[in-house]
Amino acid sequence: MHEFQLINKYFSKLSNKNKSSLNLNDDVFFDKSKKMVVSVDTYVEGIHFINFKKPDFVIKKIIRSSISDIICKGVKPKYYFLAGSGNKRSFSSSNLKKISKSLKEEQNKYNIFLCGGDTVYSSKLSFTVTSIGFSEKIIVRNNAKLNDDIYVTGNLGDSFVGLNILKKKIYINDSLNKYFKNKYYMPSLQLKLSNKLLTFANTSIDISDGLIADLDKLLNKQKLSYNLYLSSIPISKNLKKLLIQKKLDKLSYISQGDDYQILFTANSAKSRIINKTAKSLGIKISKIGKICSNLHKSQIIDQKGKKIHVKTKGYFHRF
Amino acid sequence: MHEFQLINKYFSKLSNKNKSSLNLNDDVFFDKSKKMVVSVDTYVEGIHFINFKKPDFVIKKIIRSSISDIICKGVKPKYYFLAGSGNKRSFSSSNLKKISKSLKEEQNKYNIFLCGGDTVYSSKLSFTVTSIGFSEKIIVRNNAKLNDDIYVTGNLGDSFVGLNILKKKIYINDSLNKYFKNKYYMPSLQLKLSNKLLTFANTSIDISDGLIADLDKLLNKQKLSYNLYLSSIPISKNLKKLLIQKKLDKLSYISQGDDYQILFTANSAKSRIINKTAKSLGIKISKIGKICSNLHKSQIIDQKGKKIHVKTKGYFHRF
Repeated sequence: MHEFQLINKYFSKLSNKNKSSLNLNDDVFFDKSKKMVVSVDTYVEGIHFINFKKPDFVIKKIIRSSISDIICKGVKPKYYFLAGSGNKRSFSSSNLKKISKSLKEEQNKYNIFLCGGDTVYSSKLSFTVTSIGFSEKIIVRNNAKLNDDIYVTGNLGDSFVGLNILKKKIYINDSLNKYFKNKYYMPSLQLKLSNKLLTFANTSIDISDGLIADLDKLLNKQKLSYNLYLSSIPISKNLKKLLIQKKLDKLSYISQGDDYQILFTANSAKSRIINKTAKSLGIKISKIGKICSNLHKSQIIDQKGKKIHVKTKGYFHRF
Repeated sequence: MHEFQLINKYFSKLSNKNKSSLNLNDDVFFDKSKKMVVSVDTYVEGIHFINFKKPDFVIKKIIRSSISDIICKGVKPKYYFLAGSGNKRSFSSSNLKKISKSLKEEQNKYNIFLCGGDTVYSSKLSFTVTSIGFSEKIIVRNNAKLNDDIYVTGNLGDSFVGLNILKKKIYINDSLNKYFKNKYYMPSLQLKLSNKLLTFANTSIDISDGLIADLDKLLNKQKLSYNLYLSSIPISKNLKKLLIQKKLDKLSYISQGDDYQILFTANSAKSRIINKTAKSLGIKISKIGKICSNLHKSQIIDQKGKKIHVKTKGYFHRF
């Protein structure tokens, strides 16, 4: 049973349905009256990160992954709480110093503050991050409209290459090596775009599980389908080069997750303002597809016009 | 290095000192402008609970332990988030059903709502609970005044007996067996007293680590000491009977933690209103000692007037 089904079956009824709790059917909780947005996520060694050999990088990744949930909803994160369970080696003085330095750097970059947490000893290393932001309103899931354009920020796939380098499944030269690993550990979050999103996005999500899986999650309660144009899906020059060099398939690289870019839909009339915003903020925003009725199946259309039918993907945590 | 030192050395500087964050030096975070109180705690199998053979009880205990942090500060909890890591056996359908039922019962009892969380697979079972309440003000630590009376709610020690029964270190008859085990799993929280505390308590904490350890935590930044009167420390009739029967030492039973009663100090002029409040709410509140200057050492005075010097105890998680 995947996480969605779990939540629906056992926990949805425990949420306070009258109070904008989104029925646990979103990555965040929103209390309209308190204007408060909360995200809680757990990261386990061996599942969400490979190991703790680079504590400074792992900490940056989990903090970004957590606040990304809030940023993609159009809200600036303000506070975070970090609860860590691990053994004495994981929390050695040298590691704690690195963790503390990384947190300081993330705080400066994203204007957030550590407000509490817990440190407990456990044979298994894991972290739970609670992030909180404040906003009059947020962008929710399951609110795409028929004929909406589908957009994505930044580039996809670099992070997956970085992961494969770390797992020794891809070998490349030193400078690109560092580029891709950094993209895996330190995805660029679109903080500047966050509040602007509220003015044009109908629905949004951050890409943590992969473009296709997250698009399915974004629309999961709606009777809608989508067309995606493979050639429009943005990738970096470095990834483009790598795909050619190694004869790799674009589709399998852009749908693997850990990108933490924002996927959103908007009415086609918003196209101009979206382009203007992208330009003025110096952010890449690409139109990659369209929301269609459920009379036909979701599909990806490749460079040659070939249609690839998309099977709905489950929601599995991988590293 | 215990948790306090860890926090001070590596993390205190990361808190936002201008914004009432209590410098991470309390069990909760308080944002005065948002009137928001947050507590985050992690519970690991084998450390904070023995095992998961009784998921319904374990879940109740961790929820109560979490909201207890907020209740003891004079605030009613409103929301909670539950992040669980564990294997498929821990999160089997049958266990999830029990977890869901327990949560529902706690929600009804304490008027709280599940607002989100996470479920991830891990070889080690642990839960992180984030609880949130709202209040104009809270009672903080390190605010005892010289000559304050020291009070505690309810009875102490029952929970520790329950734990020892579960660990097969104490054997007693069936009806008492159940009584003590229930006190361990389902400590009674003083929700009704919570808001009233704001009117008379100078400082407060919930007893999770033990009377002495938590009293030390309550005063840790203050140059004060205390006298405790052993005979005034409240225990249940059942525990009284057991101590006599098994010739056990009262002091070692009332200072072991997991009681989740509220320990607070108040000016002696508040004595009447405290007694009146206790009576009107039907709650036991006992005066157990006095805050003294640091010219002498903290001590416990036993029934015969004998003085026992107290060594400051560290802060260790036990089950």
